[in-house]
Amino acid sequence: MNRINVFSSQVIGPTKDADAIAGSTKIKTVHEDAWGYKDTQFKMNPSDGCVSLSGDRYLYSGKRFPNLYPFIQKYGVDKDIATPAKNIEAKFFDSSKSTINESFLESLRGAVPNLRLSVDPKERVMASHGHTVQEIWALRFGKFSRIVDAVIYPESHEEVEKIVRLADQFGVAVLPYGGGTTVSHSLLCNPNEKRMILAIAVSRMNSVLTVNRETMCVRVQAGCVGSHLEKALGSVGLTLGHEPDSWEFSTVGGWIATRASGMKKNIYGNIEDLLVDVKVVTPIGTLTRGTEGIPRMSAGPDILQMVLGSEGSFGVITEAVLKVRPAPEAKTFGSLVFPSFEDGLRFMREVARRRIQPASIRLMDNTQFLLGSSLKPEQSIFQNFLDSVIRFYVLRVKKFDPENICAVTMSFEGTKSDVAKHESMLNSLATSQFNGLVGGAGNGIRGYFLTFVIAYLRDFGLQHQFIAESFETSVPWDKVDIVIRETKAQVLADCKAAGIAHEPMISARVTQTYDSGAAVYFYLGMSWKGLNDPVATYSQIEDRARECVMKHGGSISHHHGVGKIRKQFMDQAVGSVGKAMIKGLKTTVDPRNIFSNGNLV
Amino acid sequence: MNRINVFSSQVIGPTKDADAIAGSTKIKTVHEDAWGYKDTQFKMNPSDGCVSLSGDRYLYSGKRFPNLYPFIQKYGVDKDIATPAKNIEAKFFDSSKSTINESFLESLRGAVPNLRLSVDPKERVMASHGHTVQEIWALRFGKFSRIVDAVIYPESHEEVEKIVRLADQFGVAVLPYGGGTTVSHSLLCNPNEKRMILAIAVSRMNSVLTVNRETMCVRVQAGCVGSHLEKALGSVGLTLGHEPDSWEFSTVGGWIATRASGMKKNIYGNIEDLLVDVKVVTPIGTLTRGTEGIPRMSAGPDILQMVLGSEGSFGVITEAVLKVRPAPEAKTFGSLVFPSFEDGLRFMREVARRRIQPASIRLMDNTQFLLGSSLKPEQSIFQNFLDSVIRFYVLRVKKFDPENICAVTMSFEGTKSDVAKHESMLNSLATSQFNGLVGGAGNGIRGYFLTFVIAYLRDFGLQHQFIAESFETSVPWDKVDIVIRETKAQVLADCKAAGIAHEPMISARVTQTYDSGAAVYFYLGMSWKGLNDPVATYSQIEDRARECVMKHGGSISHHHGVGKIRKQFMDQAVGSVGKAMIKGLKTTVDPRNIFSNGNLV
Repeated sequence: MNRINVFSSQVIGPTKDADAIAGSTKIKTVHEDAWGYKDTQFKMNPSDGCVSLSGDRYLYSGKRFPNLYPFIQKYGVDKDIATPAKNIEAKFFDSSKSTINESFLESLRGAVPNLRLSVDPKERVMASHGHTVQEIWALRFGKFSRIVDAVIYPESHEEVEKIVRLADQFGVAVLPYGGGTTVSHSLLCNPNEKRMILAIAVSRMNSVLTVNRETMCVRVQAGCVGSHLEKALGSVGLTLGHEPDSWEFSTVGGWIATRASGMKKNIYGNIEDLLVDVKVVTPIGTLTRGTEGIPRMSAGPDILQMVLGSEGSFGVITEAVLKVRPAPEAKTFGSLVFPSFEDGLRFMREVARRRIQPASIRLMDNTQFLLGSSLKPEQSIFQNFLDSVIRFYVLRVKKFDPENICAVTMSFEGTKSDVAKHESMLNSLATSQFNGLVGGAGNGIRGYFLTFVIAYLRDFGLQHQFIAESFETSVPWDKVDIVIRETKAQVLADCKAAGIAHEPMISARVTQTYDSGAAVYFYLGMSWKGLNDPVATYSQIEDRARECVMKHGGSISHHHGVGKIRKQFMDQAVGSVGKAMIKGLKTTVDPRNIFSNGNLV
Repeated sequence: MNRINVFSSQVIGPTKDADAIAGSTKIKTVHEDAWGYKDTQFKMNPSDGCVSLSGDRYLYSGKRFPNLYPFIQKYGVDKDIATPAKNIEAKFFDSSKSTINESFLESLRGAVPNLRLSVDPKERVMASHGHTVQEIWALRFGKFSRIVDAVIYPESHEEVEKIVRLADQFGVAVLPYGGGTTVSHSLLCNPNEKRMILAIAVSRMNSVLTVNRETMCVRVQAGCVGSHLEKALGSVGLTLGHEPDSWEFSTVGGWIATRASGMKKNIYGNIEDLLVDVKVVTPIGTLTRGTEGIPRMSAGPDILQMVLGSEGSFGVITEAVLKVRPAPEAKTFGSLVFPSFEDGLRFMREVARRRIQPASIRLMDNTQFLLGSSLKPEQSIFQNFLDSVIRFYVLRVKKFDPENICAVTMSFEGTKSDVAKHESMLNSLATSQFNGLVGGAGNGIRGYFLTFVIAYLRDFGLQHQFIAESFETSVPWDKVDIVIRETKAQVLADCKAAGIAHEPMISARVTQTYDSGAAVYFYLGMSWKGLNDPVATYSQIEDRARECVMKHGGSISHHHGVGKIRKQFMDQAVGSVGKAMIKGLKTTVDPRNIFSNGNLV
């Protein structure tokens, strides 16, 4: 058994450790009013509209994208219209009134002497929101009606046990805080909460406690951040393989609480497939199984599955045992181009039917494909020439319609020979039976890259009167097509009705495939020119899109969760008895409702 | 969408349909005091001890097994000692007192006019027990302290809704009854239940409602019996692939309620992997999701996972949506022989690590191997000669020790070429790195066959003063070895202390493999010669074995469930908070505790 600590040479964000959050350090590393690292930002040259990406973290950081502006211009992004954030400092201090339970704090100091506690307004705001566009909007242009009153940074499961016991005893509300990347409003505080609200940030609980190579499991503290954990495991030849889009910031505890899904789930599984054991501190005690590391068990309703998706309503997740795999010898990328979305979708269905998915396989629709293409960085004349040859071949020789063309991006992991064979098999299936063309590794890598910068792009839009967001669902195979078609049509109609000045951008991609269905991501972006309350209009359109998704057979969420933003759809999602059961669990473990975030039901 | 009905040309048992249970038909088909079909029974020739198997259902039905008696004789089975069942008719009528809630029955008749209801003592006894050795013992030599008061046979989800609503209203206790194959005492009635107890048998709810080839899912009524369902699906080119040992009798609803595991889970998954949707009638309403067939969802704690393992305590499972696969082109068997259990176990670990398991792969220890060998039917002189050549090769040339030799049996499903490649890869791994020898298809088939007759063998023992039973667990990989070793040692010591007259038979097999661990089955058999209360002694030894299993890191159960027989171990299994959560669910859906079977917690 090795004991290793997660270590990263660079400070990378609010979840890295508590010091990174406190005071000025944070400001140097992450945006206060947008997604991601402060050093990374899309910027537009006001003279020619050429967009560039700052920083050096990503594949295309430091590059210029001359084709992006022409693409987004038709949706109403205007280089001459800037919509900067209002003064954020003022907001922080405006929110600084706080409810402090002094006798609780006194007992807390006695019980956990070295506990770091902060009432700094910036830290409190940081712990009181996630990253939906509504929340970023509030940061940039609005305000929060209630934020947490203090933030604490415990360092162990045992400290959390003491804290929760005291909070329950003194009537203090508790909000567990992981990476803050939630997109379900799960961190927004109840404006009517009269009690002190205490955020328990798990950022100091970021150790890998044990590595067991016989069972291929690791025990980790719940505050481990995805990319850090992966790096630590990589240093001993292992991989977790869990890569949600947020993995640079999101934590193990957050994944569990949200039912996270990773891009490479076809090899590594979603979080429910990775989770072997868990410790959750609830007001009635710590939930944990008595026999450790059991692979599969018949002992009544699965308690792990009751914690998965609990969205901070039951307790604080402090530790987890997760499966790991040997780090793969090779990681490669590939792509395929199809003349139509229908062809691509039939291909995806067949791949799932045969269960021959690579680590990741995703189908982009035409709009996504064009967006992806517009994100090609400035390149040499020779490369431009090569591209035009390829374009000639695809459009003229193969007669693909540029308005219908779509793409599949793939990532492979395994031995060198296996990944090569796998890619060749998929390429041959696509070309022989589904009218596909092999698109090469470059497009595959760009598809992957797009994932990590899509949130930066969204916030770039906010600087130019353009509001954008993604929302996702899961759908049985026989309804994927209709859910996408009807939802796009609904959004277009609603945008028109709402008086959106320009054509809105609505696109879809199939991001995960299962035996019986698939996950679908929508991207919606629109100019808010002339709108009275842009974020309200956007929210209304998204809600109606969700109604449409569910009406045609899609789910409430594939992996974003419910929180408060999708709570109104829970009746339909799990029925009244399902809701009662979730409420029953909540009442059982938290009879005084100290985990009062109001998520789920 | 096709609508097909499960149909079988032969009456095969109590779950086939209600008429098969009523009156004389049942007596013709299933044993009243033992496992399985009445036409199938091991019998010993009193003169030479040669054992034969009656009937024609199984591979070796109608065959004689000259090597079995010599093998079991050393454990104390004596051809001259017979221990026949006591008069079972008398017991049935002894148990015939019943508590009838007349006003409930009157309302019930009004609400569900054509409902078949029986107060026949035989049907009532049948619905009040499962198939542990303790229950078979009670049938043969003892009695039940409480049985259900009536049995009803609804035909649809809607009928069950009416029935449960009335039962809740009139204070009638309800016991859902599937195939009756439970081995956790989950069907035993609470002796202190003063209310009328009504068994709801789902045997008439055995239709396949819809088949969807695009999503590859079927919607079935919960009373569908495994082998019937498989046959129905096979007729349209599909397979469910779920084959628990009980599948000739057990039902879809029972699988869900028990968290069943099937032999071929490596391809098809366990029941939790197969289940896509469910309908459960609880006293507060029907639990069901509003969007059908969702492949994966983040909507809080998973309600399907709260029903899985609920053991009849929450409601009546009436319908389910299950995944299906295309029926495989080829089904083949293989086997490997290893010089020691340790070698075999290392091989199993490596196969799981590489995730190259065939449909089924199981490792038998030396005792199981010898038992399997002793079950070879009488054969030709030529075949005997061939066997002795093979024996010579294995024991003399390869120098395998007959007291240590063990075997792996495998079943493969897929295309002809894939299964051949797969077997060849596993054979080559075993022989090149784990000292294995290829054992051929015959042994593989015999291993498979043993599964289905092991319960018949147990009940054969009961006729000859020999009490036997299996129990199972799941264990992390690093503890499989110690759990098996320590449990065997504990059982041997406890048998000695209990004064067992002959050497007991205690053996183990690894029946399933997972990423992080394996499932282990133990078989324990012992002569009860001279024992005062054989079944009590046996139960005590099994309980202590379970303690030992859990002390060394094994679970409360891999797939048999908890019921009442393992309830005492739930504290250790899921902890006090876990138990509270399960109780919380129970209280929520069944506030008046009409599903009063007392299982789980």
